[in-house]
This record gives sequence, structure tokens and C-alpha cells, in this order.
Amino acid sequence: MLQNINNAKPGDLIEVSGMVHNVRVTKWGGFIILRKSCGLLQTVVGDQSKFFNEQGEQITMSDLCREMAVTITGKVNEANIKDPAAFNKTIEVAVDKVEVLSRPTTAEVVDMNALKFGDEETLLRYKFDNRQVTLRNPRDMAILKVQSTIAKAFADFLTENGFTQIFTPKIVSEGAEGGANVFRMDYFGKQVYLAQSPQFYKQIGVGVYERVFEVAPAYRAEKHATSRHLNEYISLDVEMGFIKGQEDVMNLETELLRFIIERVSTVCKHEVELLGATNLPVIPASVPTWKLSEVHEILFNEHLTEDHRGEDDLAPEEERAICKYALDKFGSDFVFVTHFPSEHRAFYAMDDPQDPSLTLSFDLLMRGLEITSGGQRMHSEEAYREKMLRRGMNPDLFKFYLDTFKNGMPPHGGFAIGLERITACFLNIANVKEASMFPRDINRVAP
Amino acid sequence: MLQNINNAKPGDLIEVSGMVHNVRVTKWGGFIILRKSCGLLQTVVGDQSKFFNEQGEQITMSDLCREMAVTITGKVNEANIKDPAAFNKTIEVAVDKVEVLSRPTTAEVVDMNALKFGDEETLLRYKFDNRQVTLRNPRDMAILKVQSTIAKAFADFLTENGFTQIFTPKIVSEGAEGGANVFRMDYFGKQVYLAQSPQFYKQIGVGVYERVFEVAPAYRAEKHATSRHLNEYISLDVEMGFIKGQEDVMNLETELLRFIIERVSTVCKHEVELLGATNLPVIPASVPTWKLSEVHEILFNEHLTEDHRGEDDLAPEEERAICKYALDKFGSDFVFVTHFPSEHRAFYAMDDPQDPSLTLSFDLLMRGLEITSGGQRMHSEEAYREKMLRRGMNPDLFKFYLDTFKNGMPPHGGFAIGLERITACFLNIANVKEASMFPRDINRVAP
Repeated sequence: MLQNINNAKPGDLIEVSGMVHNVRVTKWGGFIILRKSCGLLQTVVGDQSKFFNEQGEQITMSDLCREMAVTITGKVNEANIKDPAAFNKTIEVAVDKVEVLSRPTTAEVVDMNALKFGDEETLLRYKFDNRQVTLRNPRDMAILKVQSTIAKAFADFLTENGFTQIFTPKIVSEGAEGGANVFRMDYFGKQVYLAQSPQFYKQIGVGVYERVFEVAPAYRAEKHATSRHLNEYISLDVEMGFIKGQEDVMNLETELLRFIIERVSTVCKHEVELLGATNLPVIPASVPTWKLSEVHEILFNEHLTEDHRGEDDLAPEEERAICKYALDKFGSDFVFVTHFPSEHRAFYAMDDPQDPSLTLSFDLLMRGLEITSGGQRMHSEEAYREKMLRRGMNPDLFKFYLDTFKNGMPPHGGFAIGLERITACFLNIANVKEASMFPRDINRVAP
Repeated sequence: MLQNINNAKPGDLIEVSGMVHNVRVTKWGGFIILRKSCGLLQTVVGDQSKFFNEQGEQITMSDLCREMAVTITGKVNEANIKDPAAFNKTIEVAVDKVEVLSRPTTAEVVDMNALKFGDEETLLRYKFDNRQVTLRNPRDMAILKVQSTIAKAFADFLTENGFTQIFTPKIVSEGAEGGANVFRMDYFGKQVYLAQSPQFYKQIGVGVYERVFEVAPAYRAEKHATSRHLNEYISLDVEMGFIKGQEDVMNLETELLRFIIERVSTVCKHEVELLGATNLPVIPASVPTWKLSEVHEILFNEHLTEDHRGEDDLAPEEERAICKYALDKFGSDFVFVTHFPSEHRAFYAMDDPQDPSLTLSFDLLMRGLEITSGGQRMHSEEAYREKMLRRGMNPDLFKFYLDTFKNGMPPHGGFAIGLERITACFLNIANVKEASMFPRDINRVAP
């Protein structure tokens, strides 16, 4: 008897376990909709179908309820399923036997679809308040399945390309991080911080393994409660040595994204269809790349935005406009913007030798949103000390970091992608919290 | 010209970048030992070799120093290399040209081998105090390369077997965790905790995806400073639904470990040789499995330990003795011990219906050390409430967790493996901190 529903063809006898997502009784029998990790499966009850409880005693279909765990045996039949949450629209199972393995406390389980709520905000609050159960909603399952697939594709591509996965500490001491937006905590009497990013550690990793990546939580104590921010998120970090320039980093990211999109489109075919997101982002052979000053020029000359020439950052209307321009003109859902002013970038960004007021750094925009910051980093100790002093930073607080460069470092650069943000962006989901299993924001630290 | 040294054969012309690990000048020329992420490469300088600095100006071999980043072009020759840190003992490169890409601040770089220290403790302290540079020591590189390979193999095997990777919060509120050994912190005015394990969340994940895994940091505020403990470590977590009993979980772990050992033995061939750890653990088709009471009996009857019959845990001498017994008698480096007393296991462990004073839980021992705890969990809300009340726990503090079972959960179980511990165990490394990139203990939170 076949055990894997993913390989099932009409005519197969199958044994399949899952949760009862729904029960519909009809005059002639009815349907049990089974929930599997891959989506829903329709099973059809007829007058030959038999039902057994946990003790093996015979029961009837009316004894079944939602969120029972069951094992169903039966025959796979051809079908034409309408429910978009069905993972395979061409099969159903004619039920021979249903065995109940376990059951909810009451038949009144949480409404995981929360369809009764009209407005978006109440719906979201309900969803997150009951996340331990509402996650069982096929739509939420699909979002996090895509998230999981992106993370795995990220690791697979980089491993294949000679990167070593590293695990760096999230509890860090003074000097490793700083600024206003860090969470502080007591560590056996010492004040320590939760890491905002593995930046210093991944650069150290380049001195060891040439190319490194990390998939790990990062923390920002920002007092936002917006649809674009999380206080705890998963950061996909990359850092690579022996680069000739930031172009090497941008090219790697381009190939990485191409690989991820391809993986999602095959592994998560059902999920992107269910979420109405089959228009996965398009990434051309070469992603349109402009300097910040060029973006201002283009958008002004093309009458696409107001005049932002001379400004030292992208206005939100420019982010949207340059993405639309790149899509219309170059068929790309992605745009690299480079050469941001030094004073607006982190101190470790390498200044452009052609114009030291600018940096060899980039943002990657996708569909109007910034999904990555990256660039080439400085690699000489003197350059770090000089820039720190210029910015009023105390180099003594960064001794272990500076020591890395003192002991020699290859030219290097890297970038970071927020996993929840790229997931939401791929799927056209407005609120990044929906791409987090248990989101954390200023108002929410449970469940 | 070939760019990838891993595929190089004698006769190839090659361009290879790396860090200068060592320079040895001889009468006739000398050697530049290049450090790559895969290990060391010997390059041979002759009278035709040319040297250039960062500006492209010609220099001499005596201008080179350790920890310069260089690109070397030359011809691959057959060789017979003695250095165990050479990743390929059969090749070297005859240097045509060396281009310096960047250099350390001074030629006096940190002694990353720290050979000058006699005693183990001083050596370790030095290593960890200067970890940002001592990681470049080929032995430490090898340890963390094996760690990285284990983590990747873990994710690959589970993904292949229908598990979904989840990312659960490390900032948790009261009720999610508890007890004395948690780190507390302030979260916008609320007291919160760093997660000791993703236990509750991975069980929730089973109600969603049937089978889930996570690779993430876990936190224990234990005041130990031993060779076996870390306050921040990477937990490899597995939880699976629709099990028939804890045997399903143990069988999965057995196959997972077999897969990991196979992967390490092929991908990390050089690293395990360098570390003298080619005796990777042996895992038979079926791992010897005894109940706790049976272990006491066997060891007493075989005169291998003192009489521990009737005791409710394994004595350390028993852990060592039963592992030796399993290896001698069954050719296994692993032993499952099951049926620990209920009062010594976490409240979520399922009690044995045959004898409710015992649990359907297991420890996996390897070479005398416990590397895993696991077992079947309870899945009915009533069972949780009853056991919590019996233990004096307040079920109201665990509402979101109990809600999961109230809404139905399949029979399930799982286990967790400490990444640093299993890495150290595979490689016969005495101190688990050596298997952590930047270890955290009661005395160390930097670098």
C-alpha cells in the first residue's frame, strides 16, 4: 500500500494520515477534507466506508470532527477539485477506512480562517493572538512554506558555491554593537546586548573561510509598530573575500536570487498558486544598476518623480518609480542602486577612491522596496581607525574587530537579506509579520 | 587558466587566491604556504617567480609576510607533502607570479598556533581571547568546517524526508519557559526571556506541518564553567507527528545520524584526517536499545560497574560502561536508553501506559556522553493539565501552549541535538567550547 500521497496516481491503494480540516455530511455519504503539510486532500465517504475510534471500536461518520488526527485508507480516484487549497486538483481518495488517532478537547476548535472579521487590523490581531492554531490555515501554511524554501535554497546555493555556514553569537558585549536600537540584558552581572547583525563576525569569518554565510535571528529594538518592521527577524547574511570590487558581490547576489526564485517556483508551485503569487519576481541576466545620482537624474528627466537631484538618499516615491521604470524598460523586478554617500552608510563601507564622499555600497530594490543592503568593506586597519575617529567613535571599544584587520584581511564585501521581508515581497504580502511564524513587535511578545 | 584548486591536476596552469600562512626562504628560492578555506597549499618559489605589490610594482620575495592576501599564478606539479594541514598531499604549485592584494598592519601577526603555551588552560584562554585571529589556525578551521557540515547534513536529510524548517522566536514571554536557568531581559518595559529551547514552538509546528526542524541558538543561564557546557549553543531540533511510538523517533534519529556520519566522512575527509579523528562513530543498522532498568541490570550482572539497580538515573560510570559494552558486544558507538522515570523528565513527556511512573522517552549516548534527549510527547490537553497540576505548575501560564492540544494534535515526538556537543564528540575533542566559533560561558562574552 502506497504511503506517500505526493506520488499517488488514480488506481493506487493508499494509507494517508493527517488532520481533519473539515467534514461535510451529504445524503449519500460525504467528504472528509484532510490537511497535510503539502495542502488539502479531498476524501469521499460512501456507504462502504468504516470508522474506528482510538480504541479500535467502530463509530460513525457523525462522530468525526475537525482537528482529529486520523489515518485514512482508500483508493485514489481521478477528480476535478475546485478548492484552491487542494495541493493536487486531479485526485481524491475514496474512503475505505478512517481510524481516529487523537482528537481535540472539544469540537469547537479555533476558527483558523477567521473569516468572520471584516477589517484587516482586527483579523491580523486575531490571527496573531491565536497563532498556535491559526497557522493551520492553508494560506498561512503556504507563506511559511515559501519562507522555509527560500532559506533552504539560500543555504544550498551558497554551499554549492564554496561558502561555509557559520554560527555567530547573538549575545555580544560592548563594542560589538552599539547605538540606540539594541536590546540590553544582564549576563551574570555584565550588561550585554542582543546582536543587531553578525556584521563583525561574518567579516572575521572571511579571514578564516574566504566565503561565509549565516542564517540566524537578528534584533532591533526599534519602537516601530509598522507593517514593514519586526523586532526579531531572520537575517540571511553573506560575506565573501578576494573580490575585485562590489560588482562581484552584486553578481553573486543576482545568481543567488535567480536560484531562489527558480527553487520557489518549482518546490512551492502549489503554495504560490494558492497565494495568487504566480507572478514571481523576474530577474534578467543582468540587473539594471545605477548610481544614486543617476537614479535622481533618470527619474527627473523622464518626468517620473519630482526633482530629487542632489539629495543624499532615495525618496520612497523614487524607490517605487525606479522599480517601475526598470520593469517597463528592462523587464526586471530588481534594481541595484549604488554609490550612496559615505555619511549615510555604516562606517565599515569602503569609500569610492574616485570620490571619497561616496561609498562602494549598494541597495537592492525589488518591487519598490529595499530588500538588501550590501557593498565592499574596508580591509585595512588604518582605514578603519581613520574613519572611526572621523565619526567620533572610540576605536578602543572595537579592539577585537580592528585586530582582525591588523592581522590581515583580503578585499571583501557582502550583503544581508531579511528573510521575512523577501518572503513577503515574493508573495505580494503587505504586512511582513505574516511572513514570521511568531512575530515580535513593540506590542507583541506572545504567543 | 583553472581557478578552482580543488579540481587541480599536475600540469594545470592555475590562478589561486588565499592568505599567506607562512613564508620560508631557502638558498634556491623558497616556499609560500597559502591558506585556503579547504586547507593549506604549498607553492614553490624559483628564480623565475615574480612578485608585485598592491600598486603593481615589482617587489621581492623578502617583501612578503604572513597574512598578506595574495593571488598566485603558476603550474600545478606533483608533490609529496608532509604537512597534515595540506588539503591535498599530492600537489604543489610552481610560482610564476605573486600579486599582493592587501596586507596586515605589521608583519607581527598573532601566533595563531599558540604553540608557545605549555598547559591546556592557558592555551585555550589565549585561543579564545584572540579568537578573531586564532580561528585561522587550520585545526580550528577544520573543527568548525565539520560543525558546518553536520548542520547542513541535518537540514538536507530532514528536508529530503518531508520536514519543514521553522524559525521560532528566541525572545519569549512568561509561560513559554521558566525555571532558574533563563536569561531575563527588558523588552519595551516587559520582562521577557531568551528561549531555552524551541520545545513548545516545534510541537505547535507539528500541528501545522506534521514534521518540522529548526537550527537556532538556545540559551541556558547555567553558572557552569565546565568543558561540557555553553551558555549559548546551537540546538538542532526535530519534532514529528503521526508516530506509532517513540521507536519511530529513534529510528529517524538513527537514519539521520547515519546520513550525517556518511556526509562528514566524505565532505570532511581532509578535516577529520588533520584532527586525527578518522575513527568516526560507527552506527549499526539497529542501535542497541535498553530500558534504564535493564542498563543497571546488565552492568551489574557483567561486573562492569557497581550496583546501581533501582536508581532513577544513569551514573556517569554507567554512561561510559554501557557505551563500552555496546561497542565491544554490538559494534556500536551509540546506545539508546529508554523509560526514564517520569519525575526526572520534562512534564511534556508521555508516561508509559504499562507503568505510568516511567516515560516513553530516551537518551542517546555516544562514546560515553549523552548527546540527545527525546521521546514521545503527550498530545491531549487533559493529560497536560493533569500532569501540570500534579507538578504544581499553573496551567494558566501556559494557555497558548495548552490551546494547541485543545485544538487537536496528532501523536508526536522528537529530539534535540546540541551542535557543538555532537561536533566535539565526533572529533574526540574534550572541550565543547572548541566546537563553538565564539563560545559564551559565565566568564566569557567576548570577542
